[in-house]
Amino acid sequence: MEDWELNPFNGPELVRTELKARIEKASFCHHTEHLVLKTMKRYGLYNINDQIEEVLMRSKIQDGFCYVGTMHITAGIYMNDAESGLLEDISTWLSTIAPYRKYYRHHQTGEDNADAHLKSYITNHFLTTPVTHGKLDLGTWQRIFYAEFDGKREKRLVVKITGFV
Amino acid sequence: MEDWELNPFNGPELVRTELKARIEKASFCHHTEHLVLKTMKRYGLYNINDQIEEVLMRSKIQDGFCYVGTMHITAGIYMNDAESGLLEDISTWLSTIAPYRKYYRHHQTGEDNADAHLKSYITNHFLTTPVTHGKLDLGTWQRIFYAEFDGKREKRLVVKITGFV
Amino acid sequence: MEDWELNPFNGPELVRTELKARIEKASFCHHTEHLVLKTMKRYGLYNINDQIEEVLMRSKIQDGFCYVGTMHITAGIYMNDAESGLLEDISTWLSTIAPYRKYYRHHQTGEDNADAHLKSYITNHFLTTPVTHGKLDLGTWQRIFYAEFDGKREKRLVVKITGFV
Repeated sequence: MEDWELNPFNGPELVRTELKARIEKASFCHHTEHLVLKTMKRYGLYNINDQIEEVLMRSKIQDGFCYVGTMHITAGIYMNDAESGLLEDISTWLSTIAPYRKYYRHHQTGEDNADAHLKSYITNHFLTTPVTHGKLDLGTWQRIFYAEFDGKREKRLVVKITGFV
Repeated sequence: MEDWELNPFNGPELVRTELKARIEKASFCHHTEHLVLKTMKRYGLYNINDQIEEVLMRSKIQDGFCYVGTMHITAGIYMNDAESGLLEDISTWLSTIAPYRKYYRHHQTGEDNADAHLKSYITNHFLTTPVTHGKLDLGTWQRIFYAEFDGKREKRLVVKITGFV
Repeated sequence: MEDWELNPFNGPELVRTELKARIEKASFCHHTEHLVLKTMKRYGLYNINDQIEEVLMRSKIQDGFCYVGTMHITAGIYMNDAESGLLEDISTWLSTIAPYRKYYRHHQTGEDNADAHLKSYITNHFLTTPVTHGKLDLGTWQRIFYAEFDGKREKRLVVKITGFV
């Protein structure tokens, strides 16, 4: 049985954010932060849309792209609707397609998280979203989610925003 | 039974295109359009490659990236071959992996499209493609497709092209 | 039975690399190469991280994005861990989700690779990764992989890196 934390409205605890680089030339800017998150359960789906919009605000970029990627191969980033029933459907579906099992070849290394590596193909590990007029150029119901498949510890996201300030 | 419209050669009806932003500085340009499409069936796979190339022509960008994303969480964007038999295989396969069913948790909200939310993970909701020498830098058989999983109404795409003019 | 070549540490033979375009303006640069690869088996998973880092070194770009895409619809690009047992798990799992079968509609054209077209949805056909301080801004265990689903011949990748030199 996979035990999931499903949070349609909030992200995991933000432990800290590290400004990795900021380069400005001729009103064109690259702004890069690593976000350190902590999840309390092994599996979880978390709405990180507000946390990403805060990085966008700090970057002051008005038009360009916002890249959000997990820096782990046992987690994912995806876009979907912030509805609690849907989060249950998604977690059940991911558990069916790429189930936790005792016997994977990867487990001969001492790990037991092969299912997390497989689940990350379904969500993908990054997404890019346009930034227009200073905002994420999203549809009405689109929200950025973080998917944790091997949590209970600190994990990092890289957010890199490029464009005109 | 899912009823699909499969169009290997054409996109859905283009209702209108809205120029959202165009910024040029020192021969570097960002060009952003929203395309409003209308599909006639609930499910469909449509070749939108020509419609995206037209946006690229309007942008006059010669080298950079073309981002194509659906602004809905019940649709997808993907790259594949424009072959009608393959479109049947893809639609059958998507229906098997993420089938329409009466009973999803999401349906307690009054919706009945949870399968559409799941199918969008398989196709993904956006893609980026390089632009080189004024053209989409694609392989011989690569074409951009729009996947509709909850149609019969207007839907929006965001196309954002950045690069040197 | 699908016969896979699984290489956690090396990419396929690099036949040649073609510089398609290089544009520099005001310390902002776009560098585009096509890599021609040759695989010896029909199916395979190959670590191409070093080959991509070599393109990054040639580009001299210090901060921006690195796009890696296959130019074929029967191959994929993904991020995962370089562990040989995991590669076996991934290949087995892909074969289960999108199996080789004699009877697909696409095969009426004379092709027999419909499963390759389907597998490419799971891996996706491209990825983008940030470049920060002159390096791919990856997590400790993240490596870029090439997935071949219809090989034994030359295939092309497009690598496009943009950013500040």
